[in-house]
Amino acid sequence: MENPLILVTNDDGISAPGLRHLINLVKDMGQVVVVAPDNPQSGMGHAITVKTPLRLRKLVDEERYAEYSCNGTPVDAVKMANKIVLKRKPDILVSGINHGSNASINVIYSGTMAAVLEAAIENIPSVGFSLRDYSHHADFTATGKYVKNIIHNILKKGLPKDTCLNVNFPAVNGSEIKGVKVCRQARAFWNEKFESREDPQKRNYYWLTGEFNMLETGEDTDEWALNNNYISVVPIEFDFTAHHAINELNNWDFNA
Amino acid sequence: MENPLILVTNDDGISAPGLRHLINLVKDMGQVVVVAPDNPQSGMGHAITVKTPLRLRKLVDEERYAEYSCNGTPVDAVKMANKIVLKRKPDILVSGINHGSNASINVIYSGTMAAVLEAAIENIPSVGFSLRDYSHHADFTATGKYVKNIIHNILKKGLPKDTCLNVNFPAVNGSEIKGVKVCRQARAFWNEKFESREDPQKRNYYWLTGEFNMLETGEDTDEWALNNNYISVVPIEFDFTAHHAINELNNWDFNA
Repeated sequence: MENPLILVTNDDGISAPGLRHLINLVKDMGQVVVVAPDNPQSGMGHAITVKTPLRLRKLVDEERYAEYSCNGTPVDAVKMANKIVLKRKPDILVSGINHGSNASINVIYSGTMAAVLEAAIENIPSVGFSLRDYSHHADFTATGKYVKNIIHNILKKGLPKDTCLNVNFPAVNGSEIKGVKVCRQARAFWNEKFESREDPQKRNYYWLTGEFNMLETGEDTDEWALNNNYISVVPIEFDFTAHHAINELNNWDFNA
Repeated sequence: MENPLILVTNDDGISAPGLRHLINLVKDMGQVVVVAPDNPQSGMGHAITVKTPLRLRKLVDEERYAEYSCNGTPVDAVKMANKIVLKRKPDILVSGINHGSNASINVIYSGTMAAVLEAAIENIPSVGFSLRDYSHHADFTATGKYVKNIIHNILKKGLPKDTCLNVNFPAVNGSEIKGVKVCRQARAFWNEKFESREDPQKRNYYWLTGEFNMLETGEDTDEWALNNNYISVVPIEFDFTAHHAINELNNWDFNA
């Protein structure tokens, strides 16, 4: 595809190093428009902003590169990009690079991946990239050639209908990466620990923290891939229907 | 099941008539604990609160009925219920009754259904109920016998592994309801319209509004069911993997 229109967003916010790294990777691949939250939006899932007004701020406006921040969630950013900023549907949406894993069940809490799903709903090919390192100073160097390769693949071949990609990188040097593995989402859950504190008025409050708990270790899962220094690529979809369960439910007596 | 422990939540907030209606329906079915957001949380999707402290407020504390509000999202409410309020895992989580449809693609933006998915991740049988009427004064009367029937079914038979239920009611009288239909999620999208305004300081801001756009009308979809006065029951899952797409992606050259 010649001169594709590339929409870029994330959930760590407009100034996150992971976003800056992604912008540098795609800047020579086409016309690039960034619309990203002005503040960190990790853990916002597929939230949209309906109770408060949204604002959009133009930061850069060059011929082949534009940059905007908005005060909403990552899903808001995608919607504002498509309906306010862009004159035509983008050829691809890329989200990230997230500081921290979005593999396994993390996909459901992730603002980075919600932006990707939102684009898929709007029939825009889309991919999210995440590095399994939560640090602000994480080293994104090793991601470069794979990010470019995956974007090239999508622009050339498109994606299977109604799917988008969740790509996660192990936090290792490029030389240690064993390659790319197409996987399924591993079963896992977060075991929350609420840290209880007292405010100066002696009222109780809590901080949400937690520990990640794997429930399986199959070689076809994204967690296995990352644990074994592979880059995981999981095709995901916005159809939540558990199709396999429909027959069983048809045997229920709903009128008893 | 004798004296089941029933956890109740929603996304319209602790004072919503839909929640009050659901509480009245389940109060004689077992021991009931309500943990719901203190404020409306529609459109919050699977958001969790990590940047601000969470607070929990005890409102009612009787032997067989307790009620709490929290300042977080519906997913926060489920987590706080399980980790702070309840002494054992609940036998079922019920969410709603939502003011407005959560059929089709609405499931992905819904706080009501995010609470249900969160419970499923934590291996708690769970179901969300929604009425296709956004009004605060919506009439929930017709939902009663079906809500009780579905909860009885779940408590008796359990649910297929890793699935939960998304139940939507058409906004019609009980006599017009044709029955229950097990369905799949219809393809659709919201066509956003951002309403642009100027604040007193002459700065631009936007309100997010939109129109629902159906992309299909198949008789096996939830939207068809609701349009034809059936109650739709869609089994949903938290595995977002597009399993059907894995083979195609395995043909990509990720090292080119």
